[in-house]
Amino acid sequence: MGLCLGAIPTIEKISPECVPLWLDLLPALSGEDTTKSFFQELVNILLSYVCKSFRRSSKVLDFHHPHQLREGLEGFSLELPDQPENLEQLLVDCRDTLKYGVKTGHPRFFNQLSSGLDVIGLAGEWLTSTANTNMFTYEVSPVFILMEEILLKKMQEIVGWSEEEGDGVFCPGGTMSNLYSVLLARYHFFPEVKTKGMTALPRLILFTSAHVRITSIHVRSCLFILSINMGKMIPAELESSIITAKDQGCVPFYVNATAGTTVYGAFDPLNAIADICESHGLWLHVDAAWGGGLLMSNLHRVKLQGIERAWSVTWNPHKMMGAPLQCSAILVKKRGLLKDCNQMCAEYLFQTDKHYDTSYDTGDKTIQCGRHVDVFKLWLMWKAKGSEGFESQVNKCLENAEHLFDKLKQRPDFELVFKSKPEHSNVCFWYIPPGLRNMSPGPERNRRLHEVAPKIKAKMMEQGMAMIGYQPLGDKVNFFRCVFSNPATQTEDVDYLLEEIASLGHDICIRD
Amino acid sequence: MGLCLGAIPTIEKISPECVPLWLDLLPALSGEDTTKSFFQELVNILLSYVCKSFRRSSKVLDFHHPHQLREGLEGFSLELPDQPENLEQLLVDCRDTLKYGVKTGHPRFFNQLSSGLDVIGLAGEWLTSTANTNMFTYEVSPVFILMEEILLKKMQEIVGWSEEEGDGVFCPGGTMSNLYSVLLARYHFFPEVKTKGMTALPRLILFTSAHVRITSIHVRSCLFILSINMGKMIPAELESSIITAKDQGCVPFYVNATAGTTVYGAFDPLNAIADICESHGLWLHVDAAWGGGLLMSNLHRVKLQGIERAWSVTWNPHKMMGAPLQCSAILVKKRGLLKDCNQMCAEYLFQTDKHYDTSYDTGDKTIQCGRHVDVFKLWLMWKAKGSEGFESQVNKCLENAEHLFDKLKQRPDFELVFKSKPEHSNVCFWYIPPGLRNMSPGPERNRRLHEVAPKIKAKMMEQGMAMIGYQPLGDKVNFFRCVFSNPATQTEDVDYLLEEIASLGHDICIRD
Repeated sequence: MGLCLGAIPTIEKISPECVPLWLDLLPALSGEDTTKSFFQELVNILLSYVCKSFRRSSKVLDFHHPHQLREGLEGFSLELPDQPENLEQLLVDCRDTLKYGVKTGHPRFFNQLSSGLDVIGLAGEWLTSTANTNMFTYEVSPVFILMEEILLKKMQEIVGWSEEEGDGVFCPGGTMSNLYSVLLARYHFFPEVKTKGMTALPRLILFTSAHVRITSIHVRSCLFILSINMGKMIPAELESSIITAKDQGCVPFYVNATAGTTVYGAFDPLNAIADICESHGLWLHVDAAWGGGLLMSNLHRVKLQGIERAWSVTWNPHKMMGAPLQCSAILVKKRGLLKDCNQMCAEYLFQTDKHYDTSYDTGDKTIQCGRHVDVFKLWLMWKAKGSEGFESQVNKCLENAEHLFDKLKQRPDFELVFKSKPEHSNVCFWYIPPGLRNMSPGPERNRRLHEVAPKIKAKMMEQGMAMIGYQPLGDKVNFFRCVFSNPATQTEDVDYLLEEIASLGHDICIRD
Repeated sequence: MGLCLGAIPTIEKISPECVPLWLDLLPALSGEDTTKSFFQELVNILLSYVCKSFRRSSKVLDFHHPHQLREGLEGFSLELPDQPENLEQLLVDCRDTLKYGVKTGHPRFFNQLSSGLDVIGLAGEWLTSTANTNMFTYEVSPVFILMEEILLKKMQEIVGWSEEEGDGVFCPGGTMSNLYSVLLARYHFFPEVKTKGMTALPRLILFTSAHVRITSIHVRSCLFILSINMGKMIPAELESSIITAKDQGCVPFYVNATAGTTVYGAFDPLNAIADICESHGLWLHVDAAWGGGLLMSNLHRVKLQGIERAWSVTWNPHKMMGAPLQCSAILVKKRGLLKDCNQMCAEYLFQTDKHYDTSYDTGDKTIQCGRHVDVFKLWLMWKAKGSEGFESQVNKCLENAEHLFDKLKQRPDFELVFKSKPEHSNVCFWYIPPGLRNMSPGPERNRRLHEVAPKIKAKMMEQGMAMIGYQPLGDKVNFFRCVFSNPATQTEDVDYLLEEIASLGHDICIRD
């Protein structure tokens, strides 16, 4: 079979006699060479993208509107065919897919809590997909199941639980982890929910602060949203709300405290909240999806003081620890509860008469059945960096935040949302265009200021040299939120961002 | 910097002056070469594993008990260090991780509904992890968001919905997809659940057949489990149960029909069930996680006749279509319902004043916030194979099942669980050891037969040349379930499996 997998040809250049198809790849007999050549070409494309992602001369993105991409740019057609395409065309499609995407690993991508492209984590993901297996039994995932156990144990130790405490599971994202905590708390206090259902229960109440997206589909009726101060829960308000709820005949059972909120990066006062939970006998969950990474740093872990008193903890290594998406863990203090709560004893799925210790089959601990392998990349990163490697990454991200904060304080064309030093790597601020600098505070200035960030962001995306998010929150009109979780980012990138915003914002036109 | 990334050295061979660490990789200045060399070594390991996975001379697995792996086999330590390890050691760890795992792509791996290693899908996964982004907004995933839209549209068309109908989302596994359907149905009939919560609702009842694992955590109280005949729901029983529930003052609202059950591969009679749902005004959900793949085949799609009448459908391309794990879609007939049901209008997450059409931001359609990119691999596979490539794969898997069924009918040492031809690729059977062949049916024979499959499976895993699952179900004692979803499997592999079971089972010792 003639292979033409050298340089990637453009579509026009493919000669009809040279069109290897997917059927020439493994498992075809003698498919090994074609498969290797195909992957070699693919790897060249991928590694070239990886290298480009880290270069400051590369654009972060090459923006196109949905209709432009749908119409098919330069022959990049998204439509699905009835007949197969040849391997060269697939490689071109791969290159184009990356070309029109967003380089989330770029040092000037500040848009999300998850950013960066950890190359060890990436290697872990390539291996994970090559192994293509499922976390539900030891039988099909012996190594990954043990790695999960070891990672969870390590994370529990870092949270501060004792040898005898601790259980957990990796699951698809922080929202799912938080959902687990609610189910566990409910089952812990009311195990009859499993047999008799929710109608057997009193009117349960959960408490959380405003800036939390908890899976409330099932619980919205009894979700009590507390107000906040600088993004933090106010313990006195929590206590009085608990008492009010009890007076009304409701049963408070669960408090969600947040360690590192999405927008402000605020940390709830965990010890004060834990005191209240203890005195009222409530389940304390700490959503440390974003803040958990700070536990790796001896300098910053003090911000999570009291987390060891939590009954459950959400911690997403795909955020501050830089693991590729997705990697989220729910940690549970009481051992065995996860299984008791979730197991369905479906013998047709999880047999107990197998020849190995079936307590290693994790399927009955989860509410999913199949489960993606999210642990290997984190395990490999931990091997590569050691705990101290994560520590230095986290410290560096917080140093970048402090650098940005210091710069913003000095500049008259920017205004900080909070004057106090950021606790996490979130820094929130407004750019003030020349026409607004002398306006007195009030609704008119707010109305205009609200339009500034979207306009700058639009121009920034069209230009493609950096990316940062904005949002309104409470009584604050649209402001930028810069977050640092990419260790590739240097202070020069922080400086670049400010210059970029100022230059894009200087001449924007705000309607009177 | 001295690079020693040639052949993978054993741990002993690493000389101290040659230990590149993760800090030498990107984003380090001049890290490009080290990164490329590291990935080149990794790719050699991965591709060598891929090639081995398809070779019949390779073992499917090299079984070790949990305590053996934990103790660290031949220097393969799972423990997490404080200090970094060098890159050579990481590569050795990668090789060992694969070595002690299970080759789920092996032609003789019959253990799960998801098997096979589709190399195009694998290429798609490598690219997905390299892009390392999130499905929540168009802003960070422009290409993948459009690919999702196009894939969902195509799947809806194949289900048989009209141009004006159809919505959906990819989510982490069939259980989550089924959970979506329950939430949607509840919201459709009782939109007040969103503001007033579940206490505002009457006692709702869901109907499903016995062999379904639906996310029942929240709904168990009102889950009515119907009995079955040969794995199928009995429409008359459904109808009478609905009437009984109504008589008791409950409100039936949802029926889960299954197209392809996990164990038997049975298809519920969809049209008959749809008639009942229509006459009672109930939401019909079809769980076609496993059976959905048959829609790709003109020969077999008749088994899902009536699916176009469903209000929602779960379809997992990671099962019968061979996409790498995970790839599961929930399809919803009524457009807009997903967003209405799940959106929380969290402006701090999903801004509506952005410069592009924000209806492409899918975050508000989901109950997760972040969402893994599960679509690209399927998109690339579709490009590579075309619809007709999937058709031929599905047909081949069902031909293998028929071949196994025919063989089993002829052999006196095996017994089929059902005498009728399998509808899907599931074939269920017992191996009857010599000592049991002349025993008359009854509790004593059943007791002994129940022990046969676990004993054979244990020996098979120790030997490692094939893998098949077993389970008891209802009144049937432990039996083997063979499933075909790996196009690499040939009829010779099916024959091999039977010989392997017979040879392992011939001399097993069953206690009197």
